[in-house]
Amino acid sequence: MFKQTFTDLTKLPKQRVRQWLSTFESVICDADGVLWHFSKAIDGAVETFNYLKTSGRKTFIISNNSAITRQEMADKAKDFGIEIEKSSVLTSSFSCANFLAVKEFQKKAFVMGEKGVHAELEQLGICSLKVSEKLEKPMHEFVTELELDPDVGAVIVGRDEGFNMAKLVRTGSYLLNPDIIFLGTCLDAAYPIGNNRVMVGAGATLAAMKAFTGRSPLVLGKPNPWMASPLVQSGAIKPETTLMVGDTLQTDMHFAANCGFQSLMVGSGVNTPKEVQQIIEEGDPKKKVLVPDTYLPSLGHLLEFLC
Amino acid sequence: MFKQTFTDLTKLPKQRVRQWLSTFESVICDADGVLWHFSKAIDGAVETFNYLKTSGRKTFIISNNSAITRQEMADKAKDFGIEIEKSSVLTSSFSCANFLAVKEFQKKAFVMGEKGVHAELEQLGICSLKVSEKLEKPMHEFVTELELDPDVGAVIVGRDEGFNMAKLVRTGSYLLNPDIIFLGTCLDAAYPIGNNRVMVGAGATLAAMKAFTGRSPLVLGKPNPWMASPLVQSGAIKPETTLMVGDTLQTDMHFAANCGFQSLMVGSGVNTPKEVQQIIEEGDPKKKVLVPDTYLPSLGHLLEFLC
Repeated sequence: MFKQTFTDLTKLPKQRVRQWLSTFESVICDADGVLWHFSKAIDGAVETFNYLKTSGRKTFIISNNSAITRQEMADKAKDFGIEIEKSSVLTSSFSCANFLAVKEFQKKAFVMGEKGVHAELEQLGICSLKVSEKLEKPMHEFVTELELDPDVGAVIVGRDEGFNMAKLVRTGSYLLNPDIIFLGTCLDAAYPIGNNRVMVGAGATLAAMKAFTGRSPLVLGKPNPWMASPLVQSGAIKPETTLMVGDTLQTDMHFAANCGFQSLMVGSGVNTPKEVQQIIEEGDPKKKVLVPDTYLPSLGHLLEFLC
Repeated sequence: MFKQTFTDLTKLPKQRVRQWLSTFESVICDADGVLWHFSKAIDGAVETFNYLKTSGRKTFIISNNSAITRQEMADKAKDFGIEIEKSSVLTSSFSCANFLAVKEFQKKAFVMGEKGVHAELEQLGICSLKVSEKLEKPMHEFVTELELDPDVGAVIVGRDEGFNMAKLVRTGSYLLNPDIIFLGTCLDAAYPIGNNRVMVGAGATLAAMKAFTGRSPLVLGKPNPWMASPLVQSGAIKPETTLMVGDTLQTDMHFAANCGFQSLMVGSGVNTPKEVQQIIEEGDPKKKVLVPDTYLPSLGHLLEFLC
C-alpha cells in the first residue's frame, strides 16, 4: 500500500490511515531526527513510540550511530521516557560485530572508530585493537617503521573525531593486505546541525581510506539490509508487516526498500519533502528506492491516527 | 612520431632514435622517480639532464610536490649536480598560486597543505591563511563555535601530514559557501615507497573533503595542462617540439597527452611496462591518453642516443 508514492498521510481520510496502520505488527524507528535531536526529544515522539508498543506492536530503534552501545542507546531512550530494552536496539557497530560473529571470525579486528564498536565486538567475544597515535615524525619515517599486527583479520572504519594522518596511514596499511576484511559502519559523510554548520561522518574518512587503498568497504549500517537480519532471521519481525520510520532518504528510506518494509518519512530531520519531489520529478529509476511510501511532518503526527 | 605506441627505444635502430630526439627543442622532466628518489639521484639522470641542456635544448623540471617552493626544488636539483634555475621549475603549488594571480584574485586563500603553497602565494602577492588546530573538544561544540574569516575567497587543499578532523571540518566549512573557489594540488592518493609501504598523498584528503562537502576541486597539478601554461603562453616552449619524461601514467603521461607533448615513460618510478600493456590489451578508448609514446628503463638510458 502507498508503495513509493510519497503519500502525505495528513491529506488522507483518517479512516484510510487507520486501516493502513492496522497492517503493521512491527515498527522500527530511526533515532536522531525521528525520536530526538542530540539531547532534546522531538515533540510527541516519545508518546507515539510508547503508544505503538502499548497497542501491541513490536517496537525497535535502529541507528547508524556507532559511538554508543545498544545498551547505552536504550538507556538514552529511557531517559527521554521511551520504553525500550537493549534487545530492541540495532546499531551499526553491533551490525559490524554481528557480521564477524556470524562468520565465526577468530582473528583480531582493528578499529578506527568510536568506543561503541569496541564494546560490541567485546560483547560478542571478538578481540579488537584501537589506534590512537599521532604523526609525530615525518610520514616517510613513520611509514617505514610502521609495525602491523599479523593477527589482524578485519578492519572496521567508523566515525572518528580523532581521525588524523597517522591513523589513516596505519589503517590503510592493514588494508593493503587483500585478505583483511574491510568493514564500514555507514556512508553518511556530513550531518547538518543547522545554521549552515555540518559535522563530519564516517563517509568522509571512508572516502579517504578508499582513495588511499583502492579498496571499498562493506558498509554494514543502513541502508544495508544486514542491519535488520537479527530481527528477520529470528522471526521477530516479518518484512511485510513492518513499518520503518526515518528522516533520511539515502539511509532510512533506502533501507526500508532494501528490507521490503513499508516506509514513513518524517520531516523532523535531515531530508525535506522538497528533496523527495525533486527525485520524483527527475524520474531516474535508480533513485526510486529513495522515495518514501508515506510522509508525516513528525512521528508525533502519527498519534492522532492511533488513538 | 610513435604517438601512444609505447615504443621501446632500446629495440629501435639508434639512428631512428637519434632522428626522433633531434625533433625536440624542449624537454620537461618529472622529478621524483625520474631524476631522483627522495634523497638519491637515479643512475645517469643528472648526466643526461645536463647533456640535454648542453646540446642546446631548453630543460625544465615539473613536479606535483607542493611541499617545497620552485626555488627549493631548483636548489635540491643543484645539490644533485643538475643545472637548473628557479624559472625552469614548475610545481603544483606554483600552479595554484599562478591560477589565482592570473584571475587577479584579491581575497585571502585558505590553505590546507604544505609550506610550498603558502610561499608561492606570498611570492605572487596573495595573502594566505593556514590551519594548524586540533580537535580538542567534542566535534559538535567545535562546529557550533567555529569562526570563519569572511575575507577567504579560495581554499587550496594539498598533501598535509598534519591532516586531522579539525582541519577537515574548518576547511570543509569554508567550502559550504559555493562562492569560494576550491583548488587541489594533485589527485595522487598514495605513493608506494617499496616493501609494501605506501605514503598518503593529497588525493586521499581531497576525497574526504569531496565526500564531506559534495564539491569537487579544480586540481591544478598534472595532468591539468594548466601546469604548463606559463611555458606555453610565454612562447618558451612549443608543444610539438616538447618531450615530457615521466614515471606515472595517470599524471605524467596523461599530462603529456593533454598538453600535446610527446612522451617518454621511464621504468625507474611508480608505474611499470606491465601496467601499460594491460591498458593496451583492455582497449578502453578512455584510457588511451595514459599510453606513453615511448619507453626507456630510465632517463640515463637516453644518453647513449644523445652522445
